Amino acid sequence: MTGGDAPILAVLGGGQLGRMVAIAAAELGVRTRVLDPSPCACAGHVAELVVGPYDDAAAIAALTAGAAAVTYEFERVPAGAARLAATSAPLRPGPESLAETQDRAREKRLFEACGFAVAPWRAVDSAAQLADACEELGGPAVLKTREGGYDGRGQARLDAPADAQRAWEAIGGAPAIVESLVAFRRELSLVCARGVDGQTRFYPLVENTHRRGILFITRAPAADVDDEVEADARRHAVTLLERLGHVGVLTIEFFEVAEHAADGGRATRLVANEFAPRVHNSGHWTIEGAETSQFAQHVRAVLGWPLGSPGIIDNDGSYATSGAWAMVNLVGSMPDRRALLGMPGLRLHDYGKSPRPGRKLGHATIAGRDRAAIEDRLNEVARLAEPGFGL
Amino acid sequence: MTGGDAPILAVLGGGQLGRMVAIAAAELGVRTRVLDPSPCACAGHVAELVVGPYDDAAAIAALTAGAAAVTYEFERVPAGAARLAATSAPLRPGPESLAETQDRAREKRLFEACGFAVAPWRAVDSAAQLADACEELGGPAVLKTREGGYDGRGQARLDAPADAQRAWEAIGGAPAIVESLVAFRRELSLVCARGVDGQTRFYPLVENTHRRGILFITRAPAADVDDEVEADARRHAVTLLERLGHVGVLTIEFFEVAEHAADGGRATRLVANEFAPRVHNSGHWTIEGAETSQFAQHVRAVLGWPLGSPGIIDNDGSYATSGAWAMVNLVGSMPDRRALLGMPGLRLHDYGKSPRPGRKLGHATIAGRDRAAIEDRLNEVARLAEPGFGL
Repeated sequence: MTGGDAPILAVLGGGQLGRMVAIAAAELGVRTRVLDPSPCACAGHVAELVVGPYDDAAAIAALTAGAAAVTYEFERVPAGAARLAATSAPLRPGPESLAETQDRAREKRLFEACGFAVAPWRAVDSAAQLADACEELGGPAVLKTREGGYDGRGQARLDAPADAQRAWEAIGGAPAIVESLVAFRRELSLVCARGVDGQTRFYPLVENTHRRGILFITRAPAADVDDEVEADARRHAVTLLERLGHVGVLTIEFFEVAEHAADGGRATRLVANEFAPRVHNSGHWTIEGAETSQFAQHVRAVLGWPLGSPGIIDNDGSYATSGAWAMVNLVGSMPDRRALLGMPGLRLHDYGKSPRPGRKLGHATIAGRDRAAIEDRLNEVARLAEPGFGL
Repeated sequence: MTGGDAPILAVLGGGQLGRMVAIAAAELGVRTRVLDPSPCACAGHVAELVVGPYDDAAAIAALTAGAAAVTYEFERVPAGAARLAATSAPLRPGPESLAETQDRAREKRLFEACGFAVAPWRAVDSAAQLADACEELGGPAVLKTREGGYDGRGQARLDAPADAQRAWEAIGGAPAIVESLVAFRRELSLVCARGVDGQTRFYPLVENTHRRGILFITRAPAADVDDEVEADARRHAVTLLERLGHVGVLTIEFFEVAEHAADGGRATRLVANEFAPRVHNSGHWTIEGAETSQFAQHVRAVLGWPLGSPGIIDNDGSYATSGAWAMVNLVGSMPDRRALLGMPGLRLHDYGKSPRPGRKLGHATIAGRDRAAIEDRLNEVARLAEPGFGL
């Protein structure tokens, strides 16, 4: 069944991230094999699909047979599955990157150990502990399950300690952390990569806007980012990548917070929110917008190949001085395909998934000469994706 | 096994063209199914692969089951297979486009009926007829089998009628055409597309350079093309597309011939060489270089969707004033992957095929701010691909 000497990349998880990894891998002559419990996993349209539970030894063996490396498209991979897979082929990113991100308390402690600013937080194991923690923290807070939450799931907001019981029940009464609500200017994220040989590459900081707890729009590069803030984000990334011995793409989400500076002026500061040891929704614009997409970068990294330029496309392989990109998620139901395909400067990505409320079904990438040029089109697409948007 | 309501595109042929169609289709949420006699067909890495002969009814039925459209990646599809496939789903491009390109004599007559300039030619069925035809045409000529030739196969050059017997044997003594050798400045090709509704889109004329009868380098857009020549090429294309009722991508190869103009100056004229009713090697640069790649354009066309902009990437969705692209074919053996991956501004495409002399294994696309900027890198890649190139 194999053609030529194409190396095989094994991926735990067969959703849209695995699908886009497989497409990027194919361009580089790499065959992708994915493991997913669902026979409908959309990565299976473009890759060999092994259907089975993640913690099944036979499924893991089928996934990793002959693979040059094993990676994962989501961080909720059972630790046992990752351990098992790692016995057959190099697991990249490694188990450290997985373990640190599966538990929000551990992630916070790691950030603190790295010297990152984080929102004040407490680990809580009961409604009573939660009420006490809220009292200590003061002000509004967010309760988050330590494990298994994503896209806003497993979270509840508290305005006062009196909300503790309701919030505790809302998240299902699981071990959690509670953190002070950060009054942030905006959310920024940094997608970066580290190779087997330790070389690193950074995409520019991008700005993310959410709807109902799910990423809706990414603007790339983020507007008005001080060079200092960009440099600071990269320092954060290097610290984290090195500490984890990370190999592959990694994404850090930051809150950008406005502060009064010592000289009476205003300054901005980055508060680390969370990280993902993988390709990330806020990096999808790089498929069209960067010389090497985050997906191709991840493939290069985990196979031990030289990393590619993360330069924004400007036709000369260097950073653009003027190009701008935006990404709009298509969530729950697909807008009219003909309307989207008829828009100039727009690239539609349809993951081939069945519609379901809250499900990411695709995204659209918009190109413009500068930020102003894409805002009108962005609004047009956003209204197609979310009727009523912007009203 | 199917996920969601993803439409299925069936493709006769599972080589690299089918593979790149499948990758482009996947981005648009379309599932691709290919039919190929080889279980190693490289499109099978990214699409569902039906293994079987093209003229097998069961194989065609398996290919076309539930398909929204059927297309082909090569024009040597047996007519019976195409007819059979067309009974299950719309065959796009249609049988007319296939039939006219499968026989070089028919293709020449079609070009003449369209009013295109062609090299003087004769149909020949024996060595004796060939000698007579060479006498009539005068000067050097090329003998080409009417059916089955590609990439320089089934061709032989004659310098004089006395070469007839040798040339006839060289092509295996099959029905053929002989045509006068055209003294051309360069080969240009035009990749274009026509939708179900008759709308058309054109990529700019590109310049092609061959090595050993196989396309080696495409420069896009071609340098120094008069607006008149570009317009003339598009008029040729519209005439041909309309006459065939073509739906999908189509490529015409032209010889650009220098002529003395009536006013004593020099002019250029296009001589139509041949056409391909499909995506084409000289259009591979559009994957990175155009807003809509030839592969995505073909998928849109054959599914009856709106065509996309063929604009050269310039970050604003319009034609670039300065961007330049080049494509280098990787034939026979793959150059060192690390060397290629380490070059900035280069995108490697590896088809995942086993090496074999004369086999197209991949290509590299090079981006530059202008034509001058890519020539050095082009030479570097060409020397990696063909040691000794340019010496």
